[in-house]
Amino acid sequence: MSVNNERYVVGVDYGTLSGRAVVVRVSDGAELGSAVHEYAHRVIEDVLPGSGARLGPDWALQSPADWIDVLRNAVPKALADAQVSAEQVVGIGTDFTACTILPATADGHPLCEEFPERPHAWPKLWKHHAAQPHADRINALAAERGEAWLPRYGGKISSEWAFAKGLQLLEEDREMYDRADRWIEAADWIIWQLTGVETRNVCTAGYKAVYQDGAYPSEDFLAALNPAFSGFTRKLGQDLAPLGGLAGHLTPRAAEWTGLPEGIAVAVGNVDAHVTAAAADAVRPGQMVAIMGTSTCHVMCSDQLAEVPGMCGVVRDGIVPGLWGYEAGQSAVGDIFGWYVDNCVPASYAERAAEAGVGLHEHLTSLAAEQKVGQHGLVALDWHGGNRSVLVDHTLSGVIVGQTLATRPEDVYRALIEATAFGARTIVETFEAAGVPVEEFVVAGGLLKNRFLMQTYADVLRRPLSVIGSDQGPALGSAIHAAVAAGAYPDITAAAAAMGKREAAAYVPDAERADAYDRLYAEYRRLHDHFADGEMLHRLRAIRNEASA
Amino acid sequence: MSVNNERYVVGVDYGTLSGRAVVVRVSDGAELGSAVHEYAHRVIEDVLPGSGARLGPDWALQSPADWIDVLRNAVPKALADAQVSAEQVVGIGTDFTACTILPATADGHPLCEEFPERPHAWPKLWKHHAAQPHADRINALAAERGEAWLPRYGGKISSEWAFAKGLQLLEEDREMYDRADRWIEAADWIIWQLTGVETRNVCTAGYKAVYQDGAYPSEDFLAALNPAFSGFTRKLGQDLAPLGGLAGHLTPRAAEWTGLPEGIAVAVGNVDAHVTAAAADAVRPGQMVAIMGTSTCHVMCSDQLAEVPGMCGVVRDGIVPGLWGYEAGQSAVGDIFGWYVDNCVPASYAERAAEAGVGLHEHLTSLAAEQKVGQHGLVALDWHGGNRSVLVDHTLSGVIVGQTLATRPEDVYRALIEATAFGARTIVETFEAAGVPVEEFVVAGGLLKNRFLMQTYADVLRRPLSVIGSDQGPALGSAIHAAVAAGAYPDITAAAAAMGKREAAAYVPDAERADAYDRLYAEYRRLHDHFADGEMLHRLRAIRNEASA
Repeated sequence: MSVNNERYVVGVDYGTLSGRAVVVRVSDGAELGSAVHEYAHRVIEDVLPGSGARLGPDWALQSPADWIDVLRNAVPKALADAQVSAEQVVGIGTDFTACTILPATADGHPLCEEFPERPHAWPKLWKHHAAQPHADRINALAAERGEAWLPRYGGKISSEWAFAKGLQLLEEDREMYDRADRWIEAADWIIWQLTGVETRNVCTAGYKAVYQDGAYPSEDFLAALNPAFSGFTRKLGQDLAPLGGLAGHLTPRAAEWTGLPEGIAVAVGNVDAHVTAAAADAVRPGQMVAIMGTSTCHVMCSDQLAEVPGMCGVVRDGIVPGLWGYEAGQSAVGDIFGWYVDNCVPASYAERAAEAGVGLHEHLTSLAAEQKVGQHGLVALDWHGGNRSVLVDHTLSGVIVGQTLATRPEDVYRALIEATAFGARTIVETFEAAGVPVEEFVVAGGLLKNRFLMQTYADVLRRPLSVIGSDQGPALGSAIHAAVAAGAYPDITAAAAAMGKREAAAYVPDAERADAYDRLYAEYRRLHDHFADGEMLHRLRAIRNEASA
Repeated sequence: MSVNNERYVVGVDYGTLSGRAVVVRVSDGAELGSAVHEYAHRVIEDVLPGSGARLGPDWALQSPADWIDVLRNAVPKALADAQVSAEQVVGIGTDFTACTILPATADGHPLCEEFPERPHAWPKLWKHHAAQPHADRINALAAERGEAWLPRYGGKISSEWAFAKGLQLLEEDREMYDRADRWIEAADWIIWQLTGVETRNVCTAGYKAVYQDGAYPSEDFLAALNPAFSGFTRKLGQDLAPLGGLAGHLTPRAAEWTGLPEGIAVAVGNVDAHVTAAAADAVRPGQMVAIMGTSTCHVMCSDQLAEVPGMCGVVRDGIVPGLWGYEAGQSAVGDIFGWYVDNCVPASYAERAAEAGVGLHEHLTSLAAEQKVGQHGLVALDWHGGNRSVLVDHTLSGVIVGQTLATRPEDVYRALIEATAFGARTIVETFEAAGVPVEEFVVAGGLLKNRFLMQTYADVLRRPLSVIGSDQGPALGSAIHAAVAAGAYPDITAAAAAMGKREAAAYVPDAERADAYDRLYAEYRRLHDHFADGEMLHRLRAIRNEASA
């Protein structure tokens, strides 16, 4: 290792199945080393570890011990990989899936340590969906009372969020609810472990815990849901810390876990999608960052406050201080292609792909790429995982129109890719129609590697696409936040400009294809609007659920 | 061979790829032997034999020599298989695909014998679809002029029929048109070869050549299509022969081909679907016979004349003398399942099927059969090959609604089976709503072997299904017609009662499943009615065609 005077920061990205640490140079964002640690318990969906207690349908939990193990394992390995001296590290930042939330004691102990046999004592992962009935009640009551915060979330809050999960906790395990002095996002809990001090970040408070205009939903509202729920917000954070802020300093215990110097800066907790905007240097108003993977999350800063139909949320200071942070989403994107390849592609294609030494996705993509726009005669709705934006309806389902006896697998594969692009265009147009301009569309995430898909998005959106210059965007974003917390930059915007990576206009639309897509997009919107009321799709879902019961 | 005094008849069924002969006992319809001969030229779709002249898109031709080879090969083999003495055979009957039609000289020579290098000299197979523009013009003009015959065909005649194909001949090869003294169905041409005398049957004249109330479309109408077309009907038959009638006697030449006795009775030509009604002993009013294979054809006798929306035709004496014969159809049925298995089922299922030693259809069927009605959450439109009845629109295409990331191949397979059953129910209900009661639903054809599919039809239709007792229904039906022509029975109805085979109520509906299907059928009808106008599907087809051009 050569001696140098550079400073470094560590970013840690907590995902659904693993945590990743990356070591980043403060001066220019160079990613010098990284390591991944897979959670021993992965996602706990069927039975609890140890006790073997069975979980109900739609449950999804995680283990806090796994998160600590990421600090113990991935951080030292990333340091070693980077060949950077720990003494040169000046800060650490983290991001987490959200809303991943747990009940804890007043001193930060997860209740599952003392009550491992109680399902409700464990952290509920973002994709725990068993609180849907509770979310439905919250939404119905909020709509009935005309709660001012409801439009900030596209008219509907999610079963994934803090209040729905909290209400489920109360009503299904009163004892755990009462013992939970704190109801805390994993994003904040991990910072507590690093600093020894509880802090709460504005991002999850705003997007997941309905904190708007300086307050959570009123006691009155909560009491109307359930009298025992009225004091719920006392379990949440009251003094919220700004993103990029200094949460505290690394404790001796955390220094021992990580191999990092005691006392270095620890950034305020944050969320994976939101830190990615910084990693892509796309935190200025109008830069919409689409993190495209199994699903797509869209985040964008704006100086405009508007009620955009179907957005997941708009939060003041929610991405960077001083701007409104918008979030929207497509429930399933890569998941649709994965489902299709696993369930709908014949053996002959698998053989052909194997002969060519490529995966089925690549094989289908190359066949699909040979076609002209519209040549397959198909249009599909990308609702196989429901529709988050702009319809906020998770019980919608997929539709495909136009199949004939001549339809081939690559035709449907292409139509599904296009459907997700049409879904993205619907979101962009909805933002703009609501008075929130989208000036640049920036892509991050795993689907970046499919160049045909990216070009399709450029053609469908009729605009150049910028792409992030890192394949570990969230961890880089967390490192950028660490650099701000450590005082190396005055704010996230400046740090992102120096350390973030974005290639502008990496894909530009082809005018002829864009025109052709306009015609198909018109069909998509007609289909979208026809099925948007959910009438038929809700009935089919109800029939399915009755038959499966 | 034991000596007996039984009399026998031979039925010959001319299919798309082969001809089948069967030897049948006159007294009871026992099928004693059969043989199949595959056409050497199969379907001529790309280049002409010999000259190698290229055909255009949607062309489909056959070779008359192949048809004669069936007489030379399959008939003697069937006799040998039956161990029946030729001397005991009293008659022969045939059925053909229709409208399979050819230009011939006044003495019955196919023009392709003299002009093998001219595409238009060859017989056009039923599925020759290159005359669609001509059919479109015929339909538009007929609608404009309010031709009385048009409603007898559901408001639209097919590009497959005699006038569309004849107009194409005229306009694309005037010389062959002029040389064609006769424009004759293969069903009648083969009888000409057997008897030496030209006869024309009422069935193809009515269903395929628009012969209604004693006349073809008027000279005036034809002249309005194209002045040179006005004399077209002089190439067709004028004195039509009744079904089951005696066309003539076997010539020495035909006796030599077949090994049958010279002079035996030859029945009037007929069509595969229509003779199957006799084979199923289902020629009484209200017995709807569904011949279910790659597509489904429905034929039914009735004493009611009505204009049923979307029917393929209603013809006086068209199935048996004295009754109105109705025909309807589903463009693709088995073809949809075949397409699905070939294009949409993953390798893992093929492996599982192979392990179980069954085909993919059986494997998917057994998985689908385990489900409760509606459990898959899907509804589909069975329009992958267009919709013949009740919409008469071959440019419609398939739709599937309700797919999620949890949808499995057996779910879609089942939904497609159900969609065809819903299509059948739509046809039955349309007949009944038009005042033509359907009293019994009788199934023939290859799909009979799928018991789950049959039970699904019974449940969806909410009525018992009868099934034919033969797996060579058309050939048996032709043999029954031969017995009538030979004078062994007074009429088709009596012969069918003695020789036809039908098991009544072979499948009976389950009340609970039928109720559950009512809910899904309601969704099917909503989807059907939404897409029936063809707006979106026609635009998608147009986009496809432009992109493919």
